[in-house]
Amino acid sequence: MTDRSLSHSNLAIGLIGGTGKEGAGLARRLVQAGYAVTIGSRSIERAETTVDQLRGIAPNRLRAADNRGVIAGCDVLFLCVPFLHAVTTISEHRDQFRPGALLIDVTVPVSFDGGRPNLVDVPEGSATEHIRRHLPERVSLAAALKTIPASLLASSEPLDCDDFVCGSSNEARDRAIAILARIRGLRPIDVGGLEEARTLERMTVLAIRLNRRYKIHGARFRVVGLD
Amino acid sequence: MTDRSLSHSNLAIGLIGGTGKEGAGLARRLVQAGYAVTIGSRSIERAETTVDQLRGIAPNRLRAADNRGVIAGCDVLFLCVPFLHAVTTISEHRDQFRPGALLIDVTVPVSFDGGRPNLVDVPEGSATEHIRRHLPERVSLAAALKTIPASLLASSEPLDCDDFVCGSSNEARDRAIAILARIRGLRPIDVGGLEEARTLERMTVLAIRLNRRYKIHGARFRVVGLD
Repeated sequence: MTDRSLSHSNLAIGLIGGTGKEGAGLARRLVQAGYAVTIGSRSIERAETTVDQLRGIAPNRLRAADNRGVIAGCDVLFLCVPFLHAVTTISEHRDQFRPGALLIDVTVPVSFDGGRPNLVDVPEGSATEHIRRHLPERVSLAAALKTIPASLLASSEPLDCDDFVCGSSNEARDRAIAILARIRGLRPIDVGGLEEARTLERMTVLAIRLNRRYKIHGARFRVVGLD
Repeated sequence: MTDRSLSHSNLAIGLIGGTGKEGAGLARRLVQAGYAVTIGSRSIERAETTVDQLRGIAPNRLRAADNRGVIAGCDVLFLCVPFLHAVTTISEHRDQFRPGALLIDVTVPVSFDGGRPNLVDVPEGSATEHIRRHLPERVSLAAALKTIPASLLASSEPLDCDDFVCGSSNEARDRAIAILARIRGLRPIDVGGLEEARTLERMTVLAIRLNRRYKIHGARFRVVGLD
């Protein structure tokens, strides 16, 4: 076993609010990529139910915890709660974050008005920047998977697309990209600083609107010209 | 000759400010798609020079005019001037627009600060909406080709990508899409009303930044999941 695979299998990845469609789908794809994943929820019972549902994949690489336990126990955290609960969740557990932890924000600030998806207006310009303002300084922040449809993540369809990753530092982006690059069919692309989330969140709304307009389900993006 | 090809070859397409890289490249690709194109410029001499440079392609389907003549003479107009000159150009010739004309805005509100591309802050939210405010009511407006790199348009490389088209009405979008669909390698996608230009213009900045970050030239987009 090489150093690389050692560090890979030893990485503690946790999903905050990982019992929804997006969280469960992401957990499954991360486990399939070889990671050990802890699924968190406000209620540990709900987390256990999700783990039970996924147990067939890799029983010894999936665990359940409450969000507090996930945050205290993991170096890399995906924030999978609905955007409206993001800051409450972070604030409630702000003392639990490990120093040097990386939070990967996958929230999408979208509301539905009569079925039409709209971007939620966030004073900082994006959900990710809003979250940065409420996150302890010792935690790095990246944003990823914003434009990947939750229903696609949850399905067994190939992802077959690019993922736009922004982050508060080169290191934050590199760490997120190294993890995401192991998910099959996903090509993570470094798009720069956290302010790029403004574009990514708009692209998410565009993709949802394309789904509605063209009566499809999994509109997503690929960058052409980047090989 | 069918009715369809008749209406196709009879369509008068004009390029306002068509002597730059983007305009000349678009003119060439439109002529190759079978259209007759009039290239406009503030100076008719400059327009004639561009036409001469492109003459090899299809001599009898390329003409030169000044911007005033293009606007007065064409039912479909691509606005190819730099964004900073867009409103001046439209305002100067506002009486020349034909009733029912379609203007297709391809401008990109980007400034470069020490080489870094930034979105120009426009009070209406996007360049396209800003242009709408200054355009006579009798003219329809669509936006297209925002995310297609000018250098790619100007090259002989395959476009091999999607184009996001928004517009003030279904009819405006349908007219723009019908024209763009004939350009080889380009798949136009209807993304909705003019406010979608806010997303498209940000995506353009994202693509330019990807070019710089990854040292490439032609970053552009394709939607996966839409067949």
